[in-house]
Amino acid sequence: MAAPVALIQGASRGLGLEFCRHVLRNKPLAAVIATCRNPDRAAELRGLAGDHPGRLTVLRLDVNREEDVCAAAERVKETFGGVDLLVNSSAVLHPSGKGETSLRDVSAQGLISTLMTNTVGPLVMAKHFAPLLHQGGGGFGQQPVEKHKQHSGIIVNITAKVGSIGDNGLGGWYSYRMSKAALNMATRNLSIELGRSRPKVVCVSLHPGTVNTDLSRPYHRNVPKDQLFSTERSVKCLMSIIDALNMEKTGKAYSWDGTVLPW
Amino acid sequence: MAAPVALIQGASRGLGLEFCRHVLRNKPLAAVIATCRNPDRAAELRGLAGDHPGRLTVLRLDVNREEDVCAAAERVKETFGGVDLLVNSSAVLHPSGKGETSLRDVSAQGLISTLMTNTVGPLVMAKHFAPLLHQGGGGFGQQPVEKHKQHSGIIVNITAKVGSIGDNGLGGWYSYRMSKAALNMATRNLSIELGRSRPKVVCVSLHPGTVNTDLSRPYHRNVPKDQLFSTERSVKCLMSIIDALNMEKTGKAYSWDGTVLPW
Ligand SMILES: NC(=O)c1ccc[n+]([C@@H]2O[C@H](COP(=O)([O-])OP(=O)(O)OC[C@H]3O[C@@H](n4cnc5c(N)ncnc54)[C@H](OP(=O)(O)O)[C@@H]3O)[C@@H](O)[C@H]2O)c1
Ligand SMILES: NC(=O)c1ccc[n+]([C@@H]2O[C@H](COP(=O)([O-])OP(=O)(O)OC[C@H]3O[C@@H](n4cnc5c(N)ncnc54)[C@H](OP(=O)(O)O)[C@@H]3O)[C@@H](O)[C@H]2O)c1
Repeated sequence: MAAPVALIQGASRGLGLEFCRHVLRNKPLAAVIATCRNPDRAAELRGLAGDHPGRLTVLRLDVNREEDVCAAAERVKETFGGVDLLVNSSAVLHPSGKGETSLRDVSAQGLISTLMTNTVGPLVMAKHFAPLLHQGGGGFGQQPVEKHKQHSGIIVNITAKVGSIGDNGLGGWYSYRMSKAALNMATRNLSIELGRSRPKVVCVSLHPGTVNTDLSRPYHRNVPKDQLFSTERSVKCLMSIIDALNMEKTGKAYSWDGTVLPW
Repeated sequence: MAAPVALIQGASRGLGLEFCRHVLRNKPLAAVIATCRNPDRAAELRGLAGDHPGRLTVLRLDVNREEDVCAAAERVKETFGGVDLLVNSSAVLHPSGKGETSLRDVSAQGLISTLMTNTVGPLVMAKHFAPLLHQGGGGFGQQPVEKHKQHSGIIVNITAKVGSIGDNGLGGWYSYRMSKAALNMATRNLSIELGRSRPKVVCVSLHPGTVNTDLSRPYHRNVPKDQLFSTERSVKCLMSIIDALNMEKTGKAYSWDGTVLPW
């Protein structure tokens, strides 16, 4: 059996970077492909490559550029042949760095830019990497004994609890909330289409909790200390969900503690 | 009390046009503002204006151009002072006219263009018309006796059942489904923000059924005859939902028969 391959999209910082670190440490056989907009500026990621010689491949990929996505898929196909796990981690809260507190802050430009990165990007990734996930060896998740229930690959879209429409009691953050609700629909659609195909591919949305990263930085002072997770803690929780994924769990949104989030 | 004012956005054809006709016929006191991209080519709408002298104002508004939305809000403010009902009816299935049947058909361009028209447009309308809805006289919906529970205006976003993530069992139509899921999040957010304000504004998503219009034309032959609604039938159902709206019903998605749709 070939070594499992994990591709982490949006790996320069935050949760994406920690996913790379976690897989390199905890899955000694796995190869990791880390994509980011600007490899030259991703010093920590390059450091990680140095620490794990031959195991981490860094590729340039701006998720807003379909040509980057195509080129990366081509490269991965040539070098690895297939992918077992795709994590779409990249996102922005809003181009301004702050979510809209009210309608006053809403602009067409801010909405479109957020939707491009958080919603369109991950689906375009799924489109170009689906053929490679079909070629995956099923190295992540839990495989049932029955052959026809097994999966060749897994797509994880990192969502957010505030992207749950049903759970939304506070309002605000229009662009971010809308982008994640639409991403959850993409997850659902992907789970249906890729659940019909052979071999099958699992697709879920995962909410990482409130995590100590740049994205949430403007709001950290409002979060009780024990509720602000380190990236290590969050990724550990998310990987234990991923390790238990199979076709029966596809098409849902899960929180870091394994509970199902309402749409 | 001032005559109620209804603004129908996307009124050149289909359900939007029928909303105008319905209100003009059934609310003899109401003034109707119909917006569309191309008034010169909207012959039926102009005919309607002729049939109801002095009651129908037609304004040019491409929902993808924020400057159009601003200018229309300015015009409406000068002429009417307030708005009692805003219906966002415009939408596209996909720029190609057909929903994506599989990932193969998905493109960044198609996604963005659909999200612009179906999602960003209606929210930008809400932003610029919210001040006018606060100035509305509450002429649509059902007003409770208690003053503090009354609403000054109503926003209706026309959604689609296929925009329900929870109801999605078939997949496909990526762009359209995602745009309506994100629109439903906008509805939810608007209901919260405008439900806190004074006076309050109601905001709901409404699903019109499968209706005999250009949008659904490529799929009509797959729809059993008795399930393909005329625009008259659909708008009659939707107006009877609107007539019963109040602050207790805000923030939800309703189907043409009054049932609540899952998110
Ligand atoms: N932190 C939280 O509390 C929290 C809560 C809920 C959900 N999430 C979700 O968790 C995921 C990871 O976020 P994070 O907290 O790790 O945020 P972060 O530290 O701000 O990292 C965001 C990452 O996205 C990348 N990115 C942004 N735009 C991109 C583009 N166009 N192309 C490629 N990459 C792009 C950034 O790359 P550059 O370095 O090039 O800018 C960076 O690597 C996101 O999906 C976020 O919505 C986070
Ligand atoms: N028909 C159905 O079975 C069905 C089912 C579920 C939901 N819906 C929803 O019902 C609503 C009305 O659709 P319909 O069936 O009446 O479709 P339709 O007959 O195709 O009408 C679409 C309308 O949207 C307008 N429009 C498109 N892009 C626009 C833009 N950029 N700016 C302003 N107006 C724009 C069109 O104007 P032009 O004339 O300028 O093109 C037209 O008036 C939509 O929200 C649709 O999603 C329909």
